[in-house]
Formats: sequence, C-alpha cells, structure tokens
Amino acid sequence: MTASIEPSGARILERCEALARCSEETGALTRVFLSPEQRAANEHVQAWMREAGMNARLDGIGNVVGRYEGRSAGAPCLMLGSHLDTVRDAGRYDGMLGVVTAIDCVHVLHERGTRLPFAIEVVGFADEEGVRFGATLLGSRAIAGTFDPALLDARDGGGTTMRAALTAFGLDPDGIPGAARRRSDVLAYAELHIEQGPVLEAEGLPVGVVTAINGASRLAVEIEGLAGHAGTVPMPLRRDALAAAAECVLAVESRCTREPDLVGTVGRIEAAPGATNVIPGNARFTIDVRAPRDEQRQQAVIDIEAATAAICARRNTKVSMRRTHEGRTAACAPWLQDQIGRAIEAEGLRARRLPSGAGHDGMAIVDLADIGMLFVRCEGGISHNPLEAITIADAELSARVFLRFIEHFQPAA
Amino acid sequence: MTASIEPSGARILERCEALARCSEETGALTRVFLSPEQRAANEHVQAWMREAGMNARLDGIGNVVGRYEGRSAGAPCLMLGSHLDTVRDAGRYDGMLGVVTAIDCVHVLHERGTRLPFAIEVVGFADEEGVRFGATLLGSRAIAGTFDPALLDARDGGGTTMRAALTAFGLDPDGIPGAARRRSDVLAYAELHIEQGPVLEAEGLPVGVVTAINGASRLAVEIEGLAGHAGTVPMPLRRDALAAAAECVLAVESRCTREPDLVGTVGRIEAAPGATNVIPGNARFTIDVRAPRDEQRQQAVIDIEAATAAICARRNTKVSMRRTHEGRTAACAPWLQDQIGRAIEAEGLRARRLPSGAGHDGMAIVDLADIGMLFVRCEGGISHNPLEAITIADAELSARVFLRFIEHFQPAA
Repeated sequence: MTASIEPSGARILERCEALARCSEETGALTRVFLSPEQRAANEHVQAWMREAGMNARLDGIGNVVGRYEGRSAGAPCLMLGSHLDTVRDAGRYDGMLGVVTAIDCVHVLHERGTRLPFAIEVVGFADEEGVRFGATLLGSRAIAGTFDPALLDARDGGGTTMRAALTAFGLDPDGIPGAARRRSDVLAYAELHIEQGPVLEAEGLPVGVVTAINGASRLAVEIEGLAGHAGTVPMPLRRDALAAAAECVLAVESRCTREPDLVGTVGRIEAAPGATNVIPGNARFTIDVRAPRDEQRQQAVIDIEAATAAICARRNTKVSMRRTHEGRTAACAPWLQDQIGRAIEAEGLRARRLPSGAGHDGMAIVDLADIGMLFVRCEGGISHNPLEAITIADAELSARVFLRFIEHFQPAA
Repeated sequence: MTASIEPSGARILERCEALARCSEETGALTRVFLSPEQRAANEHVQAWMREAGMNARLDGIGNVVGRYEGRSAGAPCLMLGSHLDTVRDAGRYDGMLGVVTAIDCVHVLHERGTRLPFAIEVVGFADEEGVRFGATLLGSRAIAGTFDPALLDARDGGGTTMRAALTAFGLDPDGIPGAARRRSDVLAYAELHIEQGPVLEAEGLPVGVVTAINGASRLAVEIEGLAGHAGTVPMPLRRDALAAAAECVLAVESRCTREPDLVGTVGRIEAAPGATNVIPGNARFTIDVRAPRDEQRQQAVIDIEAATAAICARRNTKVSMRRTHEGRTAACAPWLQDQIGRAIEAEGLRARRLPSGAGHDGMAIVDLADIGMLFVRCEGGISHNPLEAITIADAELSARVFLRFIEHFQPAA
C-alpha cells in the first residue's frame, strides 16, 4: 500500500516557485550568499525538511542541513543536495530543483515509513555561484573542509567583508571549520540537477548520468589606460582602456572557438569613469574558461593571458590579471554512475552518459566523498536565465529515478 | 589708483578648490545636475557674485545668474559664463574656471567702481556635461530658448525623471521657458575655458582664441543576444551580446582613426546580467563622435551605424541605435575673435587661433547671440580626469586678458 506514495512533480515545481519569490528584485530572481532573501529561502527549506521527517539546521557557513536517520541512529549518510543561491536574473531550477527533489524523495520514504540501512542528509548549499564575493562553492567547500579562511576578508561590491556578512547573518565566522564533515560519515554524494545544456533535449531523453564535471578557470582582469576628454585627444594619442578590453573579449572568443569542447566567456565588464564623453581610463572584466580536460583548459588560459598581455602592451596600457578560481575536472565515481544508470534503466530509459559543462557542488565534495550526478532535461538547454524551464513530467520522472537510486543505494565495497 | 586692482590667480584657484569639494564622493569630483552637491556649489557661486557687486538668482532650470548693471540700469548685457556640473571623477577646472574667472573680473570692476556702457551677466550653467540624464547643454539650452520639454520625462540611472528631480530641487518644471532670454537683451556671449587639449602647451602659449566648437553626435546602442550558462553553451551556438558590443567598440575606433581630425569614443558600457559565469544576453554602450566639419562627422556616424548593424546581424543579435545628441559645429563670431585676440596681443602674446574639440555651452547659446571663447592652457592637454591642472600664473594672466576684453568690449555694429 505505502509503495504507491510517489514523488510529486507538481509539488516539486510549486516549491521551486516559492523559492523563486525569495529574490532581491521583483520580477526577477537574484539571491546571493548571506542575503535576507537567502534567509527566507532557508526557512522554507527547513520547514519542508521537517515536514519530510528530517531534523534541520544551519551549519557554520549557512548551509541548510537536513538529516533523516537510517535504521540505527548515527549511521553514516548518503549525502544529497544542491545549492540555494542564484546568479543574477536567474532561472528557478538551477540548484533549487536538486534540493527540493531530494526533500521530496525523503518525504516519500517518511510517508511510507521506510528507514534505510544508512542515514540520508540533504544539503542546501549556501553559495555555489559565487556572485557576491567572486569565489564559488563556498558552502560545499566548508563541508568538504577545504574552505579557505583568507576568503573571510573578501569584500562584496558594497565593500562588506565576508566576515562581516556572516556576523550580520547571525553566524560566527570562526565556526566555519565546524561545518566540515568526516569522510567516515559520508558514504557518497549524489546530486540531481538540470543539464543546463542542450544534449538530453536533442536526444529526446528526460534524464542522463553525469560522467564528470568539467574544470573551470576564472580570471579577473584590470586594464589601466588614461582617461581623457572624448573630443580633444586625437585617436593615435589615446590609451583607451575599454578599447583594449574589447580586443581582449574578442581574443577570448576566438581562442575558445578553435576547439570544440572548450568554452570561454566574458560575463562582466566595467569601464570607468563611465561617462559618454570621457575616454575610459580603466576597464575591468572577468574571464571564465572551461573544458573537459584539465590540460586543455590550462593551455587555453595561458594563451588567453599571453594574448591579453600583448594587446595591452601594444596599446600602451597596463594590465593586471588575477586567477580567482581554479577548479579541476571532477570525475563522477564509476560505481555511482552504474547505480544511477540502473535506476534510469528501471524506468525503461536509456542511461545516456554525458559530461557536465557547468560546475557543481560535487567539484568541492569530491574531496570528501565519491560523487554522482543525475541530469534532468531543460528546455532549449537554457540556464542562468529567466527562461530556464522544465516540465512537471520530467520533474516527477527524475524524482522517481532519484528515489529508486536512493532506495537501492549500495555503498562502495 | 584703482586700476592697480587686478584679478587674482590665487583666489580663482582657491575658489575652484572650494567648488571641487562639492562632490558626491570623497576624494573624487562628481557633481551632476540637480544634486545636493550642485546646490552647495550654487550657494558658493551666488555668495561670490554678491561679494562682486552683482545680484544673483537661480533661473527656472537651476542656472546661477549674476547681473552687474552698466551705467544705466536694465541695459543689454555681455553674457559671460560656463558650467558648474562635472563628469564623473572630473577635473576641477572644466567649466568652473570660466564661472569663477568671470566673477573675479566683475569683482575687479566693482572694486574699481567701474560701470561699463552695458550690463554684465555671469551664468553658471546647471548642466552642460549631460551625465545625469544623457542629454547635454540643458542649462544653456534653457537660456537660448531651445530646451526640449520632452526631456522632462527622461530618467536618470535611478529611474528618477527630470521633472521629479527639478521639483525635488525646489524648481517648477513648468518654469523652464521663463529662463529663456531675448536676443535684444544679450549683446554677445564670451566664455573662458581650459583647452582640454594639447595644442597651446605644445606651442608654449598660455591662452588662445577659439575659432569654432566642433560638432558632436552621440548614440545609445543596445544589443540583445541570449543569456546562457557560461559552461554549457558551445561557442558556435552563442548569441553573446557583449562579444558583439566589443566588436562594435573596435569598429568605432578603427573608423575614426582613418581621418586625422575625427574622434570617436565608447565611454560607457554595461553587460547584463553581469555575472562571471553567465553569457551576457544584453549589452548597452554609448558612442560619441566629433569632427570639425558637420558632413565629416555625419558620414562617420552613418558608417559606424552600418558597421554596428552588420556586426549584430552576423552574430544573430538584435541591435537598436538611438541618436541621443546631435550638435552642429558652432562657429565663433569673427568680430568677437578679433576683440579677444586684441586683448591677448595687449599682453604681448601671439593670438593663436584654434578650434575646440570639446563641446561647450556656446553650442547652445549661439542660437541666442554671437559667441566667442578664450582658451587657457592646461597641463598635458588632460581633462575629464582628476589630473586636470593649470598654473596660478596662467589663471591670472587669462583673467587679465578676459577683463581687458570685457572692458574694451564693443557690441557688433
């Protein structure tokens, strides 16, 4: 009788909607680390966890952690989760879907009265996107024990340090090491996430098994030229920082277009002083480079740095480049890929294996435990965009697959 | 005895310092139209005007207007002036020097007890740079009677309309037409201004006579692409609005580099949503094009518009271009050039004649009265930059020349 209780696609999407309303803007979704909106989202998630039979708490960096005990209390856990922060003007599934679906699966186990031989923990990571402080994976690094305390002095766009933001949020900056978990307490980590790319849709498949999370490098570039009056400085005498930056943007694009699996993006740019009639004396921008192989990515970054230096030298501008993030490719454990694959096949579907072009919390958790991921098809492969969309049917099917994976989970030998 | 009273370079520079402290930032000078800082600057200027024997008032758009009567009250005036607003992170002489020097000249006349056959009016224009609402010369257009009332609905970066900003400043938006002056009341307009370019310095001359103010065209460009995840969208499938904008920035530069007297500048750029790991779906930037001949400038703008359209079409992005400002070349009246030139020669200097690459309030006032300008050498030709600098000696000499021009001014026959 109880086995007829199943995850609900409608409930999952409703809850994604509820989280989408926790935003710093009306009509658009932006929710960053340690913001009032994050607090509101955390409160929703904790309430849902308790409703699903878990105890729920915030850890030292603001991750929401829910625990559903196994047959015996204090057993090692299968950790599930994803992130609760967003990019600016985000979609409503990136991150949130994984948290909400994991809770829905536990909810079903709880309703059925099922206890497994292991505990389940669901984590809603406080920061994966890195929007506020420019450094990503803060929540999952804290849990993996690899959080860099130097980041406490990082400042957001308004000049607030992470340390001050933690305190204002009601957390103790010295409490972050306490969020770290022991290897012996975590059997594995599994995450459900939208694909954020076009592969599954193109092949008519609702879900897929992730083989690896592509590595990513990020750079912050600042160019110093000389500001001047837009009307009086002849073109050959200019040291226009924005014109130099524009050339660098195109250099990133052309270098990354040369190899099929490589991507490079300039997502942010600023020119100062920033008036119509002033030659920009300063320009800052970011570069994000990703590839399935670490050496391929590293060579691209080296080439981009060289091109940028050459452009700025030729234009008599000064450039400084800083690597703000370096994420190695994180392989998903073959034994977890197999178990996720079997759960997909039990639905009569082909277990398509594909890499992830996007970064995920698993990149940090891999230092703590083996990781696995289940991808869910999204419309047009669009993500990091309000147009991000999935169907109720896919939400429900993927939750069913994820629940089956959880129920049949066997720790590595 | 009284003739020994002369303008003071030290006082002029001190007053420029005092105005530079009226800024929305500490450590940098930014003062925009209808801001609290502008109110503070206006109060200084009005006090100095009264001290110099003028009555002083704000007109309907917030220009400070000081009047020093001639031998008979109500006589037509020689109008002097410059602007009191600044660009962002500005220098301290662009605009302010002309207002402060004109007041110093009147101060000397007042101290000497001299009344001329005509009145003198000194105007501190409320907006020339156009930083806040993107439209320039608001103060001088109001006086010339050419202010476009549609601009009252323009919004600043914070969404405030000009109408609301006027009201908040204590002005009546319906009072702007009342700021317009009659042709018969203004004998001529003369402005002292730093050169903002390198010509006078290169020739070892402290001052020069302006022949014409180069025309300027400004455009606002917006490119719509498609935002997406920086890791998952292959390069060939992207519609990156910022990459398209970068190519347009370089197209402006290359088109304007082809002709010696033409200049083109992209001073502002924004990419949205503006996160490191998101492909920009939207980019906006401004273009400023100037040349000594109207046809030359217009042809360059047409070519830049065509290049921008072609770039955006090739990249499958949508572009909209709007001309936000179109300023014809404004010639300085030969009879005023001659009178300014004679005042320079009376100091034993060569009266170098040169065009102005920068725009000035004379571009609007030319619709009301004949215009003339006296340029003052500035260090390195640098302007719109905190490094803007002039010497006390040049400030004093140029004020002496300007006073001599005023004292010997003869209206056109």
